[in-house]
Amino acid sequence: MVGPDPHVAAARVAVRRTVQSLGLGGQFLLVGCSGGADSLALAAAAGFVVPRLGGTVGAVVVDHGLQPGSARVAEKAAAQCRQLGLAPVQVLTVTVTRAGEGPESAARDARYAALTEAARAHGAAAVLLGHTRDDQAEQVLLGLARGSGARSLAGMPVARPAGPGAVIQIVRPLLTVSRTQTEGACRALGLSTWTDPHNTDPGFARVRARALLPVLEGALGPGISAALARSADLLRDDADALDAAARTAYEQLGEPPWPVSRLVDLPVAVRRRVWRELALGAGSPSGALSAEHLRAVDDLVTGWRGQGPVDLPGGLRVHRRAGLVSLLDRTP
Amino acid sequence: MVGPDPHVAAARVAVRRTVQSLGLGGQFLLVGCSGGADSLALAAAAGFVVPRLGGTVGAVVVDHGLQPGSARVAEKAAAQCRQLGLAPVQVLTVTVTRAGEGPESAARDARYAALTEAARAHGAAAVLLGHTRDDQAEQVLLGLARGSGARSLAGMPVARPAGPGAVIQIVRPLLTVSRTQTEGACRALGLSTWTDPHNTDPGFARVRARALLPVLEGALGPGISAALARSADLLRDDADALDAAARTAYEQLGEPPWPVSRLVDLPVAVRRRVWRELALGAGSPSGALSAEHLRAVDDLVTGWRGQGPVDLPGGLRVHRRAGLVSLLDRTP
Repeated sequence: MVGPDPHVAAARVAVRRTVQSLGLGGQFLLVGCSGGADSLALAAAAGFVVPRLGGTVGAVVVDHGLQPGSARVAEKAAAQCRQLGLAPVQVLTVTVTRAGEGPESAARDARYAALTEAARAHGAAAVLLGHTRDDQAEQVLLGLARGSGARSLAGMPVARPAGPGAVIQIVRPLLTVSRTQTEGACRALGLSTWTDPHNTDPGFARVRARALLPVLEGALGPGISAALARSADLLRDDADALDAAARTAYEQLGEPPWPVSRLVDLPVAVRRRVWRELALGAGSPSGALSAEHLRAVDDLVTGWRGQGPVDLPGGLRVHRRAGLVSLLDRTP
Repeated sequence: MVGPDPHVAAARVAVRRTVQSLGLGGQFLLVGCSGGADSLALAAAAGFVVPRLGGTVGAVVVDHGLQPGSARVAEKAAAQCRQLGLAPVQVLTVTVTRAGEGPESAARDARYAALTEAARAHGAAAVLLGHTRDDQAEQVLLGLARGSGARSLAGMPVARPAGPGAVIQIVRPLLTVSRTQTEGACRALGLSTWTDPHNTDPGFARVRARALLPVLEGALGPGISAALARSADLLRDDADALDAAARTAYEQLGEPPWPVSRLVDLPVAVRRRVWRELALGAGSPSGALSAEHLRAVDDLVTGWRGQGPVDLPGGLRVHRRAGLVSLLDRTP
């Protein structure tokens, strides 16, 4: 007997491990499918694996209507999902509002909201997305360009709640699988895949990051995507541990003013996160709060030379007086 | 009055801040100089700044004898250091033994040993090295290719002891200064700089990493070296905090066997570092111990399904039995 194509097998193994390790066997799951190779390979693997684990799996194809012919692309993807045994399979037309951080981010937000809503309507336990190890590596490169620490280098988690307090999970079973493997799986299964024209538009930072990976590979040696994804996994655990330590420290400190004597013994990596929590909790916009701001606040503790208050985005001001650090509102 | 050239000023500011923040004002310091732009700019800045902080500064030029004419290069660098007011200035000829991890690493080890020995002989408090922000960025890229976590992405610290328990410090005052600035400073001061032919030899991973920076800059936007150096700073603090947490946890656990019940509540980022301490302390060679090994050990706690023992490099074996994790010696 001949086993399945190795790429098909790799996708199935990844889906089985993820579904089992998250305790999602036996549940109803929903694949978010674009018709691209990654999400079609995911749909195929889930259609094979999930029923064998006692569950059921459907699909939602999101049509953003951003390109001519997008409805046809969506219908074709839906038809293939049905052939793969997924049910129900639904096409959702989503209108993208152009607000926010550009079309990439607006389309993503609209897609996630639609998928989560569909999961809720169908009673699904999780939405499965087709992000691969290459997507993860690109994410790390984009984080590097920001230079803002472990969390921004930590990439995408395998599983997270769809929103604060949500029961539905967003799950990415293919983060250990390469794009070469998802494309190979689709070829082996005779699936017809769609290529998003955005994927080759160098106007998008993500597309430029993608083009860098082979260059990095040539210079630094093979396996750079895997190394970046491995770094992301390790740094995500680091960021989780330090964020938790900062939350504990914050709770123990109570409301400011805080005595410098209680701040000075915290590790700087924890104290920096306490400042961040403090600022965000008081309404500082996270996009505007930089590492430089946090360093300036920290200097009130570890670089004290009688300097003045530190102003933070969102009309906040942190000052030190008589051995106490206080948070003030600058707005009149 | 016209102030100094901005590149010269930038190097001086960096040296002054570093020397002051480390409490090295008033001490005797030694610059390690190769004759390249980075270390000559450092020598010039130190020669200006250190006496104004009440200290004295000398230089050691290391001649590896690896290239024809290296003695002439060293003498010329030494002569320029003397003209810059540094004293004493010494040329040290160092023989590189070709063992270890290739010529790059062998030359570096020999150079550091010679510099530390010279500092001890002259009674210097610190050796100053000319590594720039660009060197730091290259270091981060090399760490990324390894994919082995925060410490390998943390780059070089501003200051570290020259060895375990050493009083002499290795200090890098120019980590916030770019190579463009050191080169500009040397030009402005009329210093004649030497270019190490190794710096253009693509046989070296560091040279290939260096060539990547402009490519990354083109794709991800300006300031990538600064972003990489900023990431390194943040990740170094993270690694310090988590390493300290792991040492505390390790001390509280005492000698193995360890009850699983006491391990399970540690954050995974801390527990992984406890495994690493345990393995290295028992003689596992650090170069051979991978993230995969540590994950397999951790699975004995968080992925327990009755699996067998985990073998580690160096003849070690970790196993779980009756709720206890033990470390065994595999060698007969």
